[in-house]
Formats: sequence, structure tokens, C-alpha cells
Amino acid sequence: MGKQVDQEPLGASAPARPLARRGIGQADTEVKLPQGLLGGQQVRVIAGPCAVESREQILEIASFVKAQGAFGLRGGAFKPRTSPYSFQGSQQQGLEWLALARESTGLAVVTEVMDPAMVGMVAECADILQIGTRSMQNFPLLRAAARSQKPILLKRGMSSTLEELLYSAEYILLEGNTQVILCERGIRTFEQETRNTFDINAIPALKRLSHLPVFADPSHGTGKSEYVAAVARAAIAAGADGLLIEVHPRPEQALSDGRQSLDFERFASMMGQIRRIAAALDRSL
Amino acid sequence: MGKQVDQEPLGASAPARPLARRGIGQADTEVKLPQGLLGGQQVRVIAGPCAVESREQILEIASFVKAQGAFGLRGGAFKPRTSPYSFQGSQQQGLEWLALARESTGLAVVTEVMDPAMVGMVAECADILQIGTRSMQNFPLLRAAARSQKPILLKRGMSSTLEELLYSAEYILLEGNTQVILCERGIRTFEQETRNTFDINAIPALKRLSHLPVFADPSHGTGKSEYVAAVARAAIAAGADGLLIEVHPRPEQALSDGRQSLDFERFASMMGQIRRIAAALDRSL
Amino acid sequence: MGKQVDQEPLGASAPARPLARRGIGQADTEVKLPQGLLGGQQVRVIAGPCAVESREQILEIASFVKAQGAFGLRGGAFKPRTSPYSFQGSQQQGLEWLALARESTGLAVVTEVMDPAMVGMVAECADILQIGTRSMQNFPLLRAAARSQKPILLKRGMSSTLEELLYSAEYILLEGNTQVILCERGIRTFEQETRNTFDINAIPALKRLSHLPVFADPSHGTGKSEYVAAVARAAIAAGADGLLIEVHPRPEQALSDGRQSLDFERFASMMGQIRRIAAALDRSL
Amino acid sequence: MGKQVDQEPLGASAPARPLARRGIGQADTEVKLPQGLLGGQQVRVIAGPCAVESREQILEIASFVKAQGAFGLRGGAFKPRTSPYSFQGSQQQGLEWLALARESTGLAVVTEVMDPAMVGMVAECADILQIGTRSMQNFPLLRAAARSQKPILLKRGMSSTLEELLYSAEYILLEGNTQVILCERGIRTFEQETRNTFDINAIPALKRLSHLPVFADPSHGTGKSEYVAAVARAAIAAGADGLLIEVHPRPEQALSDGRQSLDFERFASMMGQIRRIAAALDRSL
Repeated sequence: MGKQVDQEPLGASAPARPLARRGIGQADTEVKLPQGLLGGQQVRVIAGPCAVESREQILEIASFVKAQGAFGLRGGAFKPRTSPYSFQGSQQQGLEWLALARESTGLAVVTEVMDPAMVGMVAECADILQIGTRSMQNFPLLRAAARSQKPILLKRGMSSTLEELLYSAEYILLEGNTQVILCERGIRTFEQETRNTFDINAIPALKRLSHLPVFADPSHGTGKSEYVAAVARAAIAAGADGLLIEVHPRPEQALSDGRQSLDFERFASMMGQIRRIAAALDRSL
Repeated sequence: MGKQVDQEPLGASAPARPLARRGIGQADTEVKLPQGLLGGQQVRVIAGPCAVESREQILEIASFVKAQGAFGLRGGAFKPRTSPYSFQGSQQQGLEWLALARESTGLAVVTEVMDPAMVGMVAECADILQIGTRSMQNFPLLRAAARSQKPILLKRGMSSTLEELLYSAEYILLEGNTQVILCERGIRTFEQETRNTFDINAIPALKRLSHLPVFADPSHGTGKSEYVAAVARAAIAAGADGLLIEVHPRPEQALSDGRQSLDFERFASMMGQIRRIAAALDRSL
Repeated sequence: MGKQVDQEPLGASAPARPLARRGIGQADTEVKLPQGLLGGQQVRVIAGPCAVESREQILEIASFVKAQGAFGLRGGAFKPRTSPYSFQGSQQQGLEWLALARESTGLAVVTEVMDPAMVGMVAECADILQIGTRSMQNFPLLRAAARSQKPILLKRGMSSTLEELLYSAEYILLEGNTQVILCERGIRTFEQETRNTFDINAIPALKRLSHLPVFADPSHGTGKSEYVAAVARAAIAAGADGLLIEVHPRPEQALSDGRQSLDFERFASMMGQIRRIAAALDRSL
Repeated sequence: MGKQVDQEPLGASAPARPLARRGIGQADTEVKLPQGLLGGQQVRVIAGPCAVESREQILEIASFVKAQGAFGLRGGAFKPRTSPYSFQGSQQQGLEWLALARESTGLAVVTEVMDPAMVGMVAECADILQIGTRSMQNFPLLRAAARSQKPILLKRGMSSTLEELLYSAEYILLEGNTQVILCERGIRTFEQETRNTFDINAIPALKRLSHLPVFADPSHGTGKSEYVAAVARAAIAAGADGLLIEVHPRPEQALSDGRQSLDFERFASMMGQIRRIAAALDRSL
């Protein structure tokens, strides 16, 4: 009675080992940015608000997370929202504010692109293009983003298998862009206490199946700020190469995802905990 | 411990009743095509291959399903595939073959569009634009497809809630396009005997929550041809306005989804069964 | 990357074809009761309250459903409840009331047994022993119930695969009790509009994989009375041999499951619909 | 469109705060055994084979895990198996071998009880009674086990919510037995690379919602020995009070669950890693 989730005859052009799969003895791929490497000895933290809300907001957050040791700044300018009535993001204006924040802090900027036609515009501002969970199987977008030659942070679809995630990475790699970071962000299950179920198994599984760097997003993976630090520690303990963390100075006023955003005090505390866990694995922050 | 799947403050612009929701006593919306109505007294069957493979293939199928009483012809020209190594569709050529099949049979053509930049080209050939399960939350695509003013067949995301499906319909309706057909096509669960779990509850639930026509795709909903007729009967019995059925003259040679495609004999048999179930609900085919 | 849900080396004693599996050309098994057959040409409806609440309640319901054409009376005396603070059932007293209702109506009584030690007591009153969804893999209970030589209505675990359901039936069959009825009652998924997701695919799949009668419980399968009739029609259209329906004269006052119970008017209406669907499949009620 | 997983009016006897819930400022409950505390400053590891296979096997394993710093010995004598043709355990004989292993090593013995009628026999041998994942809602068993006054290790149902787990604990606590250990062991999802999805969110969630000790079973939570150490580290990093680990000297020869069992070398390596993670949280092993 076994099944395959998606039963497809692979074309004659399919290689014995897809590009995203780790060969025997193959070393980890490192993604290279001016600010440093992703996927190496150092654990990297990319932090920031769910949505870029204003110039002041993003500069305040960037400056704080930089001081705490963050490597990158996350922030959505174009926001994919379930409802068309929800805040859709600050859009082009938001990209400009992100660029300002990079200039003032030196942080690597990570932001989402949703539309193939927008890749050029977003790539001008971003150091890393994020493909969001709802876009993991948006194949025209994967190809367009890949061609920008920017590093791609590829988030797992909220109901995608690890095999499907690796095939989506393959779309990018086949365009000649080898700078792909895989990101576990929680999957949809029956559990009701948390927004998603962070799939901790995915961390060692992806590290074994693939040579690409693996990040974790415990903010979406739990959906509640009180659980973020614990799951962040767990992800690093399991072998993740970095974290994506939602931070907001006043979470209760955030235009989106306030429920899962850490305030500054909690973020600082989490960074201290992560430092200790990383050290227990002979890694540093 | 209750949760909301996606916890978003709706904007100030959100209406008390979204456009996709049925108002008290509101009648069913009918989608109007030159070939007839969808969502009215008649049950409609849209049938055809997973992928348009050749001129001969699509003409043979179109002619057969027309003779059996089908209303429309389905067939993928641009195929969203999990793996980049799988057959990606016959693309522009496929669209031309579909146009030929319409000319020769008068069937309404339904085909998928994956990329906002392709909407114009696909709309030239198609009578109904299909938004596939992987694209249900591709918001730029929803908006671009809506603006074509073609009717839209919106398939439920394979792990989307009914609420999310209705919000995706809302993106289309807000562009002023009221010709939307909702389609249940099976959801992802733990069960292994079938490819997806057809959510039969979705049929009465969508008919109650919304005024839009509701179709069912038992081919993807089961993934095995031996279960398609039974679930097709069930969907009509539950109140669906129509069916999407994969048909192939030689399923074992199909370039995709052969496992779930009906051959001609099985399709003819299913049509007879559907006719009887429809009659038991005072509907006709 | 395929997996098996439960990876177990079967013992040397495992037969090539388990007893619950249908052999090539094997006819349907019929379960024989003094009141008639289950699994034959006739569709059977077993109706009644979630919980037996009082002598008057069960007699009122039994009399009504009998008049509408029901074959059996369901009603819980021992109730498995998530919370120890919820109503646990009328217990021995409830069994006596069920026996009274049988005497006065001739309906076959179906009631749940939860504890191996209680099998004898429940079997004295019941015509069919129900194994509830939470007990599907309670192996000592399966064996004890089987040894009573009463027919067993085996409900699918709310997160069990069809394969697991058939293995649980195997525990009963191996005790020499061949009178087993399989029952689909909805599975746990991410969907929030309904309490469970009724797995309509399970109906044709179980009929194909096994020779045992297959029943459907659309009350638990939807959790909302407004969807019960549609899913009942669907289940019969898909080939189910019978239905389990929760009925209560005043659902809003029910001690449990009122939200999914049909009142008398809705039950009568449903029976009329089922009659028509059954006729469309050349079956009768 | 919100739902409640199980919609039950609680009885009039329901307290404002169930016994399993943590009150404001309430300290952690510690489970006291002659061998030491569970739920205190020390992280505890309970290790052993899936099934007790022979006197020699259990003594060899017990002696090894004791030397590596384990606190307890796990091993199934009565095995709940999906198929009646699978190995059902060494039963009473197995209990005797477990008792021998305790005498020779001083380890606390944890073993499963499946049948209310067997509680007395199992409690004579075991220091901790395990309620397995398939029995989490076997309410007669919960009550019978509670009355033995032995500590109870309560495993989460493989598709149970955390709320349901806490209500099952409530059944035990209401019998006056306060010695309950909650155990996360992986839930059933759509993912195919692993046998279950270990719900890491459950660790901080249970620690917040309840005062009871929380254990983790990464062997069942992953189903593959190559992922066990990473998820064991993660669970401790997230705040778990202990681990349940399957160990077998020759996993490829194990009568059950060999695929997820650590061999001696891997177990020793895991213990070293856990020691370092525990230290990073100011705990010891």
C-alpha cells in the first residue's frame, strides 16, 4: 500500500543524482556574501520585522539587531497575504528603507519577491532574495529569481515534503545559480496550540540529503513569541546553519505577525542562549 | 487553546461580508459561456488529458468526450511539475492544438496558466483559465488572470483551508471579475492508499458559504482510476455543479498522471452513472 | 524517499493474503442479524443519539427512526470522552434502556464497548458491538470483543490509514469471528470548517481491498448537522452499505454532540434523499 | 470559521484550572523514584530495546547503557502491534528478564501496559508504567494504571493535540496519582522522509501549560537512527527533562524497530553530545 506523494515519470534528462543532493563525501556548500559566509562554521542570525512599516521602524530594528550580533536584516516589502484586505506591504518604498538600513548598519538584506516581473527591482535592493512558503512551487518565479544570480533563501512550502523542497531548489540550481539556502519554517498539522509545527527532523534530514546551507525560522514555526527562543535553541542544536527571527520593538503594534515577534529584550536574551548552544557544538555566532 | 490558521488583522477596508461569501438568501452565481451556464440546473463535465501531448491525441479525446456529453475539454499545455526533469508540457504548441480541438468540437477549453506574463497568451486560446493547486496563493497571478475577464477555475490548494480558498477567490472578485468557479481536488493527508484525500465535506460547505459554482476533480482527489467513478458519483450526490475528469485513450502511455486517468470505456461508464445520480437530485447532465 | 507508515517485519505466520483482504473474485461478506443482512443489496441506516440520556429519550428516538425506515438503533451508554469532566454516559442503566427500546421497536442495537472487562455485560444488551475510533488499536479489546461472537462495528481510528484499519479487523477475524463491519467516520486534517474530514475515497477503496461490509458515519465525518445529509448521499453514491447517523429530538439540549445531530425533520428529509440515491444504484433502503 | 477539535460541554464538576495545568507561579512537579528525581535539574536518559528479546539481550543492553550514564531501562514485554502477525513481545517472561536487569544494574525499569487487567502484573516488575501512543485515550487503562500508584509515563497519541494529552493526564491525576511524566514521541504528518514528525514545539508548550515533567522520544519521533542524536540534542536544548532512546547491540537483527535503534557506539556518542547541550543550559546528566 505504499505511495509516492507525487508520482511522476522523470524525463530522460534526469541525472542519477540531482544537483541539490549531496554526493558521497561531498562537502557543505557555502553561500558567499560581502558580509561573510552562510553555511560555514559560524551560525548566522537574520532578524527583523515581518513587514517594513516605516523608515524609523526599520532603522531602529536594524541598529538593535546588528548590535546584538545579527548577520542580516529581514523585512517584507511585498507581503503575500491570505486576504486581499490585509496590509499588503510598503512595497517600493519599503525596498528603499531596507537599502537605507543596510547602508547604515552593513547588515545583509533579505526580502521576499513574489512576482517574476519584480525580480529585477527587488534584486537591486536585496542581498538575498527570499522565496516565501506560498511560492515554493511557483516555478516561473524560481527560474526568474535564479537568473538574478543573487543568493536565494528558499522557504519550505507549509505542506511540502523535503523531497519537494529539494526539487524546487533544483529549478534554481539548473539555472546555474548555486547560491541556495534551504529554510525550514514549520508545517501545517492538526495541532492547535501553535500556528505551525516546526519540523525539527528536517534539519538533520536536509543536512544529510543535501549539501546546501539549512536555516530555521522558529517565528513562523511556532507562531508564538513565548516558544521562539526554545525552538531557536533546538534548531541550532540539531545542526542548523542559521536562524530567521521576527523582531519588533513593540510587537503588539506590529502591522502583521505581532503574535510571533520577539521584542528587543527577548531577542537579546535569545542571542545569548544561541551563543551557548553554538559553542556546545564547536560553532560560534 | 483554539487557533486561527492564519492570524491576520484585516485592513480597515475589509467589508462586513466578503464578495465570495453568500449573503442571506443570495442566489447561486452562474458563470456564462457561449457553450452554456456553469452553476445552474445542469451538471457539467469537463474532461480531457492531464497534458496535451499531440494534435492527434487531443482531437481524439475531444471528439470522444464530446460524444459522451462533456461540456468542456481540459488539457495542460504549461505543466507545473515538482521536478524540473519531468515533462513540462507542449506549451504554445499545446495551446494551438487545444484551439483546434475547440473548433472541431465546440467544447469549452479549460487550461492552466502559471505565470502572470503568460495570461494574455493563454487567454487567447482558453474559454476558462485554470489556476492550479500550487498557484492558489500566487496573488500576482490571481490578479493578472482576473483582469483578463475570462472565467477562472480556481483549484483549492492541496493543503489550503476552505477559508483560504474563499480569500483567494476574493482577490479575483475584487478585480471586478465575478466569473469564478471553485474546485475541490483533494487535500494532503497521512493516508497512503490514495494520492490525495478528496474532501467531500468541502462540497456542501462551499455551497453554503459561497454563491459561486463548485466543481470537483476526483482524478486528483483519488489518484487512482479505479476510484474515480465512485468519487465522481459522490461529488454530484453531495451537490457539486460539475466535474473535472482526466481521460486518456491509453492511460499506461500517458506522459503524466496515467495512473489516475480513465480510459474511454471507463469514462463512458462513469457518464452513465453520473446521469442517474444527477437525476436523483432533479438535475440533468 | 518512500516510507511505510508502520515498518514491521510480519511474523512467519503471516498468510499471503490476510483474512480481511478480498481474494480474486471473492464475493461480499454479509453480516447476518435476526433483523436482516448487512452488506447485501439493501442499504441500512443505524440511527440514534450520541448518548443514551433517559428512558424517554431513547424510546422516543427509537420509535421515530424505526418509522422512517431505520434498521438499527445507535446510542452510547459508556462514552469515551477527551475530558474526565465531560458526561461519561448513563452506563449500565443506559444498556437497560437500549434493551427496552429494542423490545418495543425491533431495531438492532449498536453500542460501544471500551473495556475488555465489560464485553460480557455489553454483549448481553447489544446486537452489534461498536469499537470506537479511539479504540481501533486497543488490541486486547479487539480480541475480547471478537470472542463474544457478536457482530463488530469497527470504526476507523481518526488518524489511522486504511491499511491499519484492515489489520485491526484482522485481529477480530483471527479469533474466528467473521462478522465485522468497517466504518469510515472522518479523519483528522488541517481543515477547520468541519470537525473531521470525511474520507470519501475510503468507501471504494475498502470495498475493493476487502470483502467486509462498509458503513459511513457522516455525523462525526462532518461534525455539523447542516452537512450530514449531503455527505450521507455521497457515501451511499460511492458504494457504502449503510450509514450511522446521530439523531436527537432537540439537538441543542443534547448532552453530547448536539452540533452534529439531526433533528427529526432533517432525519426524515435525509431518509428520502438516501432512498433516491440508493435507487440510482439499484439498491433499496 | 474557527473550530474546536473536540467540542464537548465540560461537566459542572470541571474545575477552573484542571490539575494538569500549571498555576501562576507554580513550580515544576518532580517525580520521585528510589533511583532519583525526574523533572529536576538533572536530565535523565531512559534507554533500551524496543522489545525485550532474551535474557542475554536485555542484560547486555542494561549493563551498557548504565555504564554510559542512563537513569532507566526501557523495554517492551507486551507489544502493541499494528498487525496480529507481528512479534507480540516476550510477555510475562520479558517482565522477569526486566526485573533481572534491574537487580543487576539498579536502573529504573519502564515498560508498557496495554490492558487494565494486566496492570497488577506489570506494576510488580516496573518502576514506571508506560502508556503507549495507541493507548493515550484508553480511559479504562488510564484509570487502572493510575490506581497502581506507580509513576506513569504518558506518551502523546500520534495524532493527539497537546490539549488532549493534558486531558488524558487529568484522568490519572484525578485518581490521586500525581506522578505523571508527559512524553512527546512524534506526530503523524504528510512528510515521508521520516516515520513521524517530532513536534519540538510541544516541549516548550508543555513546560508552559503544565507543571509535569516532559520527556522526548526521538527514536519514534524520527524513525531513523541517523537522525536520533540531532533530535535528542534539540529536545534537550528546547527544555525537555529527559529522553527515551531505543538501543540495540545489533539493530539489523532487532525483532522490531531496528531501523530507529542506536547501536552502542552511536548511543555513547549521543550521550556525550547531550552532556554538552545540558551543560549549555546549566543542567547535568
